[in-house]
Amino acid sequence: MSICVRNTPRADKAVIEGFAGIGVATVHEAQGRIGLLASYMRPIYRPAHIVGSAVTCEVAPGDNWMIHVAVEQCQPGDVLVVTPTSPCEDGYFGDLLAASLMSRGVRGLIIEAGVRDASTLTEMGFPVWSKAIFAQGTVKETIGNVNTPVVCAGQLVNPGDLIVADDDGVVVVRRKDAAQVLEKSRAREEKEAKTRARLSAGELGLDIYGFRDRLAAKGLKYVDYEGD
Amino acid sequence: MSICVRNTPRADKAVIEGFAGIGVATVHEAQGRIGLLASYMRPIYRPAHIVGSAVTCEVAPGDNWMIHVAVEQCQPGDVLVVTPTSPCEDGYFGDLLAASLMSRGVRGLIIEAGVRDASTLTEMGFPVWSKAIFAQGTVKETIGNVNTPVVCAGQLVNPGDLIVADDDGVVVVRRKDAAQVLEKSRAREEKEAKTRARLSAGELGLDIYGFRDRLAAKGLKYVDYEGD
Amino acid sequence: MSICVRNTPRADKAVIEGFAGIGVATVHEAQGRIGLLASYMRPIYRPAHIVGSAVTCEVAPGDNWMIHVAVEQCQPGDVLVVTPTSPCEDGYFGDLLAASLMSRGVRGLIIEAGVRDASTLTEMGFPVWSKAIFAQGTVKETIGNVNTPVVCAGQLVNPGDLIVADDDGVVVVRRKDAAQVLEKSRAREEKEAKTRARLSAGELGLDIYGFRDRLAAKGLKYVDYEGD
Amino acid sequence: MSICVRNTPRADKAVIEGFAGIGVATVHEAQGRIGLLASYMRPIYRPAHIVGSAVTCEVAPGDNWMIHVAVEQCQPGDVLVVTPTSPCEDGYFGDLLAASLMSRGVRGLIIEAGVRDASTLTEMGFPVWSKAIFAQGTVKETIGNVNTPVVCAGQLVNPGDLIVADDDGVVVVRRKDAAQVLEKSRAREEKEAKTRARLSAGELGLDIYGFRDRLAAKGLKYVDYEGD
Amino acid sequence: MSICVRNTPRADKAVIEGFAGIGVATVHEAQGRIGLLASYMRPIYRPAHIVGSAVTCEVAPGDNWMIHVAVEQCQPGDVLVVTPTSPCEDGYFGDLLAASLMSRGVRGLIIEAGVRDASTLTEMGFPVWSKAIFAQGTVKETIGNVNTPVVCAGQLVNPGDLIVADDDGVVVVRRKDAAQVLEKSRAREEKEAKTRARLSAGELGLDIYGFRDRLAAKGLKYVDYEGD
Amino acid sequence: MSICVRNTPRADKAVIEGFAGIGVATVHEAQGRIGLLASYMRPIYRPAHIVGSAVTCEVAPGDNWMIHVAVEQCQPGDVLVVTPTSPCEDGYFGDLLAASLMSRGVRGLIIEAGVRDASTLTEMGFPVWSKAIFAQGTVKETIGNVNTPVVCAGQLVNPGDLIVADDDGVVVVRRKDAAQVLEKSRAREEKEAKTRARLSAGELGLDIYGFRDRLAAKGLKYVDYEGD
Repeated sequence: MSICVRNTPRADKAVIEGFAGIGVATVHEAQGRIGLLASYMRPIYRPAHIVGSAVTCEVAPGDNWMIHVAVEQCQPGDVLVVTPTSPCEDGYFGDLLAASLMSRGVRGLIIEAGVRDASTLTEMGFPVWSKAIFAQGTVKETIGNVNTPVVCAGQLVNPGDLIVADDDGVVVVRRKDAAQVLEKSRAREEKEAKTRARLSAGELGLDIYGFRDRLAAKGLKYVDYEGD
Repeated sequence: MSICVRNTPRADKAVIEGFAGIGVATVHEAQGRIGLLASYMRPIYRPAHIVGSAVTCEVAPGDNWMIHVAVEQCQPGDVLVVTPTSPCEDGYFGDLLAASLMSRGVRGLIIEAGVRDASTLTEMGFPVWSKAIFAQGTVKETIGNVNTPVVCAGQLVNPGDLIVADDDGVVVVRRKDAAQVLEKSRAREEKEAKTRARLSAGELGLDIYGFRDRLAAKGLKYVDYEGD
Repeated sequence: MSICVRNTPRADKAVIEGFAGIGVATVHEAQGRIGLLASYMRPIYRPAHIVGSAVTCEVAPGDNWMIHVAVEQCQPGDVLVVTPTSPCEDGYFGDLLAASLMSRGVRGLIIEAGVRDASTLTEMGFPVWSKAIFAQGTVKETIGNVNTPVVCAGQLVNPGDLIVADDDGVVVVRRKDAAQVLEKSRAREEKEAKTRARLSAGELGLDIYGFRDRLAAKGLKYVDYEGD
Repeated sequence: MSICVRNTPRADKAVIEGFAGIGVATVHEAQGRIGLLASYMRPIYRPAHIVGSAVTCEVAPGDNWMIHVAVEQCQPGDVLVVTPTSPCEDGYFGDLLAASLMSRGVRGLIIEAGVRDASTLTEMGFPVWSKAIFAQGTVKETIGNVNTPVVCAGQLVNPGDLIVADDDGVVVVRRKDAAQVLEKSRAREEKEAKTRARLSAGELGLDIYGFRDRLAAKGLKYVDYEGD
Repeated sequence: MSICVRNTPRADKAVIEGFAGIGVATVHEAQGRIGLLASYMRPIYRPAHIVGSAVTCEVAPGDNWMIHVAVEQCQPGDVLVVTPTSPCEDGYFGDLLAASLMSRGVRGLIIEAGVRDASTLTEMGFPVWSKAIFAQGTVKETIGNVNTPVVCAGQLVNPGDLIVADDDGVVVVRRKDAAQVLEKSRAREEKEAKTRARLSAGELGLDIYGFRDRLAAKGLKYVDYEGD
Repeated sequence: MSICVRNTPRADKAVIEGFAGIGVATVHEAQGRIGLLASYMRPIYRPAHIVGSAVTCEVAPGDNWMIHVAVEQCQPGDVLVVTPTSPCEDGYFGDLLAASLMSRGVRGLIIEAGVRDASTLTEMGFPVWSKAIFAQGTVKETIGNVNTPVVCAGQLVNPGDLIVADDDGVVVVRRKDAAQVLEKSRAREEKEAKTRARLSAGELGLDIYGFRDRLAAKGLKYVDYEGD
């Protein structure tokens, strides 16, 4: 059975906006090193950074029909997350679908497959994280699901989960955890800013983090070079 | 036996120029979704777009000798298409060969292998679609073929076939089909411009393409979210 | 046993500076086509070019602890070379470690693994050649080695070896061979400049290099196109 | 936070035994083409077929400590499902852990990573589906989770879900759906046995499934060969 | 337009039978090192060896409908060659289709995609060379072509071309060249048998092939070990 | 410059024989988890186990000429280790070279490239660990090196180093460390045999290795299942 779920929840708007400028690595650390999509999900242009609520879409290999169904479910501030039922690098998405999503205020696309019209998407400023850029077309014959939980690039994504994506990749944050993860992310950023200043001034991580004793306890020996 | 075929045909000049600005995805669709080289053929810089007649060159793994033979067969408006007889990512091609091809008016290189001097090629503005960028050198010991039909990145390419390449990949058009494919590509572009305008104005693909009934007939159900 | 070797030798400063502007492909050719790291080692931004003395660091998969140990061993003009004991694409390195290395005058990072904070590293102008860009974090639980010989991306690198990296990849030059390789690289560059000028003027490689007789001797036949 | 969840539910024993001899492809079809792990999950020896309740285990890259924790949670009829938090092919599992699991009546291992002692595991008759066979050892420094929901090779697996694995791969069936999927699998097997008999007798799928009209309606044309 | 071409030619029966027992490597060499499909085409069980006339079939990604059309075109002694229009590892083919092909005397399947029911196919003794073994099912919604020229795993295959496949891979021989290639293959086998006897008796290839002078002329130096 | 080094040292015969029956995983652990070749080096048939002294051979991509040079340097008890100067999967080695090596008492081949005649090699009982099985032929045009240090599949191998290979992969042991590694390997085997007996009897690794306190100290919590 194929379904399209309507009226799915979204992450809190203030929380979404709060993540502006916070990087994927920070969010990933702040929530305990979970939620990161696989490393083959790459932005089609750099730099790029988006945050938004997930609208999910499950498609058949080589068939982009359901993306048209998903578009109608999208609202301003959403991020469309598309995953095929078996691995596929075809170009499911191009400038026409991007025009449609942009007209609805959608912030970007995460797709575990290919996209095309890469140069036009870049000109339009519509950010995409994908597995491939490939002109290969798709058909419209097989239906799938919209707004059901999906596994995209190794991570479970529910409709309404928060998506953060930048040059380092894509991370998913559970909707109900989003406010707490934001708080932890900010705390982390503040702490890192201080550490960065000290490192830039020449202090060593070995000292700042107090690693020397623990390294010695583990058995690290310092020796002088004896070659030549 | 190794051969170099001279005086191969070219695609019609007016037709070649007609493809200027038409994207690979459009051409691929216009000719019925055929002719696309594999997705691992990537431009060394972006954006890039070329159109031209194929001069083909088959080389041994790790041996670029035949490229020098191929250069002599190239004319203004040509695109050099190089394929190794077994998979190889060595740097077959660099700034010297590019200088030689540019002096002959060649528009770019398609190579199912590696190239080097990537930063110089970028400065020179000589576009290349390759499988890799890799400094690994090649030898000049084994001969091959020039201007015979080759399979490059999964597609048959004959000398004189039309090559179109952009950020989305590379497509080959049979020489005798080129005029017709151009016409269909233009028709497609016009149609897409109209659709894009409607989508940008907020109309849905579901309505423009009349998908709703067909989706329902296939069994798609709309339901309301019941979580939380 | 895990060790950190201090006071390792460096390549000669004048030699290091001599390599400024000389490309990886040239160095690789000049030293007899050896020393090139695997093609999957890619710069995180382009163009980029660095030369320096290697400080080596061997890390456990998913564990970046030893990089902090290695930082202390780095001096101005060094290049940090990091390799995991089994394949890993985690983000071992980000903007904090880069700030620390930059404060010490380190020229760049070569890592057969992943890095993160790619956009910040790009803004900072800290060049990195890596296998991946990936936000996945690492732990600090397992020790390794600093300044022991390592195999990185298929090449043996000793502490103090010269590293040259650019858009084409990364090459290692043995410290004791560096002066001679520099001399040969310069000779090669001069020779290539002359050849490039001739090729740009329309001369053929077939003639410049005198290939015609050797190709004929190998059996290459020229024939005229007979299709259509 | 790392947790080990005790007393997780199991699939019904009679249902588990009912799947004996039913292939992964059949189960996958019977439950609507869902639940299949990625194609790189391969058996270390063939033929092999197991069914059981999942005990899940999430491990750090290059660290098999938590597998020892998971072993204690295993009961007769279970299948251990192990997934690393970032991609890793190290040999997490060998003959000692297999001896331990066999003594507890565990039916096999599904691991999105590497295993070692492959020849001994084969002699012992302990079936494993893994991403790699690799002698590379692991450490015991970082903790993870046991019996939490995990994504393994692209599929969500909950503790107690049913796992079916054979030469074609691995499929997960939700615990509450297991009885119904068994019923559908059996129905499918019966139907297929009849179809196989007709096909073996020379009847065509085109006729048995009534495809001819639908193919014609889609536009398929039959033409006679005109070459030579 | 999708077509199914009927009454395509076959390779000569006596020639086909003549290839019995001749390996792929021999055929590949005998015809001048051409025609070899990519190395990822692997037999699902070993040892296996088949020879036959190609019936070609082009399918959509994730859609095996056209294989049913192709079955009807198969005759005793044929080999079915299936290629998707974009890369796909789904399980297009299983024991039912194998039963159908076996009832028609087809000798095996070459498919640049996945197959399933691997253990049953092995029991049935129906040999398959594929890119993957994967339980993932396919749909029947999109049509393609039967008995048109296709590129399969990097090689052009025409209907009626001769296919030879064994544990080393798959090679295609043009139908009109088949008799000559058979003759050369036999000559090669005879010559190799003699060489093998000499090598087994302890003679060196260096002497049998007369390599010593040519190696010296190329610059090979023999030196004594000076380490330790 | 290309060289062939004669009279390289061998590992001690008694030590070599001592490794008979000791697995790669054991050796790898016994020498501190170093020396393991990459996981893509797979045996062409299983089970297989060899031990011997390395004769090294560096070849050009697609060119097996130097293997003939290496054969002459091989003695009874040796293992031939072949590595190309850039990645290549061509079939460098087949039954003729195997016959030659067998006549000299060579125990097997380790090659970071392809081999062919896989079924014949299996019948002959000549074990090979390779990156690929592929019928693609090679040429004899470019020279390389024999018995120089090489990097093969990520590990440095010197002539005379000990090679151990089995179903889990390939490990290199420095010649001078071989006796000590053998001793440690035996000690490890004895210890593991005792542990295996205890595990088979139902004792838990958690108790045998005393992990419970350390896991608790790291923060592992046990909780009861609360789902359903």
